[in-house]
Amino acid sequence: MNPRDLREKIRTGEFNTHTSGVGSNYVQANLAIVPKEYAFDFLLFANRNPKSCPIIDVLEPGVVESALAAGSDIRSDIPLYFVYENGKISEKRHELKEIWRDDFVSFLIGCSFTFESALLKEGVPLKHIEQNKNVAMYITNRQTKQAGEFSGPVVVSMRPIKNELVQKAIDITAQFPNMHGSPIHVGDPKEIGIDDISKPDFGEFTEYGEEETPVFWECGVTPQSAAIHSQIPLVITHAPGHMFVTDVTNEEFLRNRS
Amino acid sequence: MNPRDLREKIRTGEFNTHTSGVGSNYVQANLAIVPKEYAFDFLLFANRNPKSCPIIDVLEPGVVESALAAGSDIRSDIPLYFVYENGKISEKRHELKEIWRDDFVSFLIGCSFTFESALLKEGVPLKHIEQNKNVAMYITNRQTKQAGEFSGPVVVSMRPIKNELVQKAIDITAQFPNMHGSPIHVGDPKEIGIDDISKPDFGEFTEYGEEETPVFWECGVTPQSAAIHSQIPLVITHAPGHMFVTDVTNEEFLRNRS
Repeated sequence: MNPRDLREKIRTGEFNTHTSGVGSNYVQANLAIVPKEYAFDFLLFANRNPKSCPIIDVLEPGVVESALAAGSDIRSDIPLYFVYENGKISEKRHELKEIWRDDFVSFLIGCSFTFESALLKEGVPLKHIEQNKNVAMYITNRQTKQAGEFSGPVVVSMRPIKNELVQKAIDITAQFPNMHGSPIHVGDPKEIGIDDISKPDFGEFTEYGEEETPVFWECGVTPQSAAIHSQIPLVITHAPGHMFVTDVTNEEFLRNRS
Repeated sequence: MNPRDLREKIRTGEFNTHTSGVGSNYVQANLAIVPKEYAFDFLLFANRNPKSCPIIDVLEPGVVESALAAGSDIRSDIPLYFVYENGKISEKRHELKEIWRDDFVSFLIGCSFTFESALLKEGVPLKHIEQNKNVAMYITNRQTKQAGEFSGPVVVSMRPIKNELVQKAIDITAQFPNMHGSPIHVGDPKEIGIDDISKPDFGEFTEYGEEETPVFWECGVTPQSAAIHSQIPLVITHAPGHMFVTDVTNEEFLRNRS
């Protein structure tokens, strides 16, 4: 399905589930919306934590169309939104038109689907995709660099990689410093504060054996998580897995922007 | 002179001229200060124009010490400041303490001195340095990407490079995408809207002959220039050549940040 048609179906409610594996060749993005008052701090937080927070587009106050998706409307083109007030989820909505404000600034943040396309293309198998699972994500003991209201732990995604392909996976992802880049950690989960690898904080655990190594990359959920934990009056995000689908292919993005 | 001593001498007024060639192994930075109200737009402008606008540090509202310079004070550690009101210069000052406000956000922007250190180290001679001249800068016909209040032309610096070393200079600077990166243009100045190469908009012209090619890189004056041209109520900058000297060596910076 082309991304414009997909966004149209999402807008009308015809498509209302997660976007994983849909329009898989196109860049999908995490969303965080904050009032203008907090936009400088949020953008600075992203700048100070570039590996966790690859900002791929910023919609200025009140703007609803992303430059990466012609004719899009950020208020309606995501299947499910979460609204957080003072750090607590207050509402789940299918569109934002009734609560939209002219001071809302929308940040689109890169997601691992883009990152994974490069690994798959170079012949590094990804077990969670083979098993049709959401990637496992963990809150670590590594801290982000604070900016204004925003701080908190680095969130990582974990992928089991065949031992003999670990170096290849590192080398491939290191080529994309603006899309998470090289792993933050390879091997023992305890070293980054993960006590039980079988219980991810978000997503689903993918088992691995002796012949595989857990590899951890910084995750685009980090800034969203920092925005929620800051307990600012209002943050709106996409629901996990219910992403914003752009018109840009993963290949174009990695070639031009990373 | 070490940077801390130099900043101390600047603070007391003992050193009160331009910083070109002083503490030459340390990163020097352009300065732009805007009120918090405009800080999001300015940071977004820098993000959208990364080759022109390598932000190396942001001092949050009211903060006066840069993380790149222990014990520094942005209100006093630059030899000369220009104050612009509504796009017009209203005052030249040696310190800002009397006019400082808690909503001032200071942006330190990379400068070509860092960039040049890599070229010199790799054996690419730079004629303007040999002739002890300020680099020539030009306003081009290329436009930056707008963000809120800020827009305007790309400003470039020009260096004559020996014909046989042009490719080498391109390759070296391409390694530093976060510090201007590869040239925006090589050769005929008219192609980027420069009608008379002997008359730069800022700095001093360095003559060149048949055996040399003019090479143009995006320049850190671009965001400062956009801030002034926006005619927002207040912008404070360093005076040309009177830079902020950090504690970070050019080599460290290029290795870790570019």
